[in-house]
Amino acid sequence: MRAELIVIGDELLIGQVLDTNSSWICAHLNEIGVQVKQISTISDDGEEIINALALATSRSDVILMTGGLGPTKDDVTKQTLSRYFNSELVFDEKVLAHVKGIFEKYDRPMLPENIKQAEVLKIAEVLFNKAGTAPGMWIKQGKSHVAIMPGVPSEMKYLMEHEVLPRIKVLPGRKELIQNHILTAGLGESFLAERIAHIEDRLPAYIKLAYLPAPLQVRLRLSAEGDNHQLLKEELDSFTKEIKDELKEYCINDNEQTLEETLLDEMKNLNLSLALAESCTGGYVSHLITEIPGSSQVFLGSIVSYDNSVKVNSLGVEQKTLNDFGAVSEQTAIEMAEGVRQKLGSSYSIAITGIAGPGGGSVEKPVGTVWVAIAGIKKTYTFKYLFKNSRNGTIIRASKNALYQLIQLVREENK
Amino acid sequence: MRAELIVIGDELLIGQVLDTNSSWICAHLNEIGVQVKQISTISDDGEEIINALALATSRSDVILMTGGLGPTKDDVTKQTLSRYFNSELVFDEKVLAHVKGIFEKYDRPMLPENIKQAEVLKIAEVLFNKAGTAPGMWIKQGKSHVAIMPGVPSEMKYLMEHEVLPRIKVLPGRKELIQNHILTAGLGESFLAERIAHIEDRLPAYIKLAYLPAPLQVRLRLSAEGDNHQLLKEELDSFTKEIKDELKEYCINDNEQTLEETLLDEMKNLNLSLALAESCTGGYVSHLITEIPGSSQVFLGSIVSYDNSVKVNSLGVEQKTLNDFGAVSEQTAIEMAEGVRQKLGSSYSIAITGIAGPGGGSVEKPVGTVWVAIAGIKKTYTFKYLFKNSRNGTIIRASKNALYQLIQLVREENK
Repeated sequence: MRAELIVIGDELLIGQVLDTNSSWICAHLNEIGVQVKQISTISDDGEEIINALALATSRSDVILMTGGLGPTKDDVTKQTLSRYFNSELVFDEKVLAHVKGIFEKYDRPMLPENIKQAEVLKIAEVLFNKAGTAPGMWIKQGKSHVAIMPGVPSEMKYLMEHEVLPRIKVLPGRKELIQNHILTAGLGESFLAERIAHIEDRLPAYIKLAYLPAPLQVRLRLSAEGDNHQLLKEELDSFTKEIKDELKEYCINDNEQTLEETLLDEMKNLNLSLALAESCTGGYVSHLITEIPGSSQVFLGSIVSYDNSVKVNSLGVEQKTLNDFGAVSEQTAIEMAEGVRQKLGSSYSIAITGIAGPGGGSVEKPVGTVWVAIAGIKKTYTFKYLFKNSRNGTIIRASKNALYQLIQLVREENK
Repeated sequence: MRAELIVIGDELLIGQVLDTNSSWICAHLNEIGVQVKQISTISDDGEEIINALALATSRSDVILMTGGLGPTKDDVTKQTLSRYFNSELVFDEKVLAHVKGIFEKYDRPMLPENIKQAEVLKIAEVLFNKAGTAPGMWIKQGKSHVAIMPGVPSEMKYLMEHEVLPRIKVLPGRKELIQNHILTAGLGESFLAERIAHIEDRLPAYIKLAYLPAPLQVRLRLSAEGDNHQLLKEELDSFTKEIKDELKEYCINDNEQTLEETLLDEMKNLNLSLALAESCTGGYVSHLITEIPGSSQVFLGSIVSYDNSVKVNSLGVEQKTLNDFGAVSEQTAIEMAEGVRQKLGSSYSIAITGIAGPGGGSVEKPVGTVWVAIAGIKKTYTFKYLFKNSRNGTIIRASKNALYQLIQLVREENK
């Protein structure tokens, strides 16, 4: 079964808004074995919408369209759909009552634009949107099915989960797609490929191996499509195990978790706690950890010591250390890590201090210089990096490297 | 001049990797007046690449293609391009020397896959990639120009800035596009639209107004295309001023900055400093601020007090307050804000405490309950929210609302 996405929005084509919807939709379709073969991002323009729809319905079974259903005047989608599907727009009483209810609940006056949100294509099955005011629509045309959803992420997600995915699941002709994942860290893509080449060469044609690199990490994805689910699964699992055995310490997990999720799970199971002292990463490591539900079982807190006074007063770094070695130094990193571990009373701590740039570099300490210290149960370890990235790239890489070193240390000290 | 993007990568179509390249490319093309009319995201598959290229070259002047040039076996792009453009692959000596140099510099062995990276299409102009090992290519076909770049963001950006944008700038037929932006916060899209409807109705056909919503914010974009740059600019500026006068306190800026950048600039100009006490937002506000170069001139640091012990020991919240009112309460928020302001010695501080979920809610304090306290120069203000989002949505909305309240308070107290 072939699916494709049509994403409508001038704001995406001028680069003002990042499209996170498509990735979410693709991941959720993938989970139920539906392969997305194309995403077409187009402007809020009638002709572009019609051209994209004509192409998509000619080659795909399921078309998911997002965006262009908001209340303001720059949206032309519904008029265009009415023209394309040759179906008039009619008021849906249930949607209208729902929209009115929302405005009453928040005690806000209802505007003519809001009333128009209850208009739907006469031929469409209405996808009732409890998460907002713009209804979705489900339209069958020839052999294709078209789902139309608003672009607001929370509303799109509500409609996908409650209306669209359930309808796709029962369409005929879906083929089983099974996948295994191995998350690796610390080994570059080429070296990884060289190391497992002897396994990859033996993969049958119906098993595909993909390398999905991210900062510091490479995710390996083995996928197979076919009818005999159980046989495929056994074969896939066997190759997965071989690859894991070959890669050993570079394997973080094979359960589709992120590095952060695995770290928190392993620390939780060992009854360990974590505190952070962040300077150049400015709270980003804390954010990566606290994004995860349940992180409070491991994570106690952080001190983001951007200014040197905070390093001294809140972390207990010696003023002499700062004077003698500077804020970006192994010694300062060690005192930050040990200071936060003691003040917050955690079993492990990470400290990160560096120069994220673009300013602040020198010949001895160029922009991108980062010191990481990890205070473990037995001793404190330090790591020096020199990143050649943008400010944000350095923040991300420093954070990921620190978390990678922590997971290695937790595994080493608690095995 | 019509441009479009072809983005290659199975990892995007299964939702494993978020495409941030396209947004960056679109924004940079938009800056030089080139309008992107479509982004086609397709799989690492020869036929899909050929179909996308054939369509794109039939309707666009400039095609930018990213991805599929990595060293591993799941990349088929170069072979496909060789077939499509009917041009053999040849080794480029300069690229080969450069790739060899990189491996020598990092003292790593060179693999056969790496050597193949020096292969380029014979008809292509080679875009030398100092940021990595995969060269870009620039190909003219008929009236279209095709730029081919690797998908690694840092390498794509290097090639865009140094090789691709300079070539596009000198192509004939570019039309002037000018834009003004107004960032608003605190007023929903429909209400904004209603409030400026009388201005919008008077806009001439060649000036377009778009509403670009984000959590808490709506960016208004006025754009005009034409030949008389100066006249257009005057007219655009006049409408922009009218809208700003109408929206008053809801206007954050009109200079394309983010809310965070404007806040930091205004605080820097007033010689003010900032400290944060974050609980449910877990470091995200600190990250939003420290992403910005130069934030150290205003931002002293944060205490991320996830565990109650950190609220008591590092922020000075009374144990009695936690016992009597709970961690998520107005009283705790006030003590957190005043505590961090005093401990870190800042002029302003923000404290945020809430229940991000999915667990931890109760009848009195459901998931999504958030208290924000802002300690200003004259007094401490509090705000209560009830967000109905995902965990991450609540983290983002709580952070944005806190920053919005801070900018209003800084403006009010320092006018």
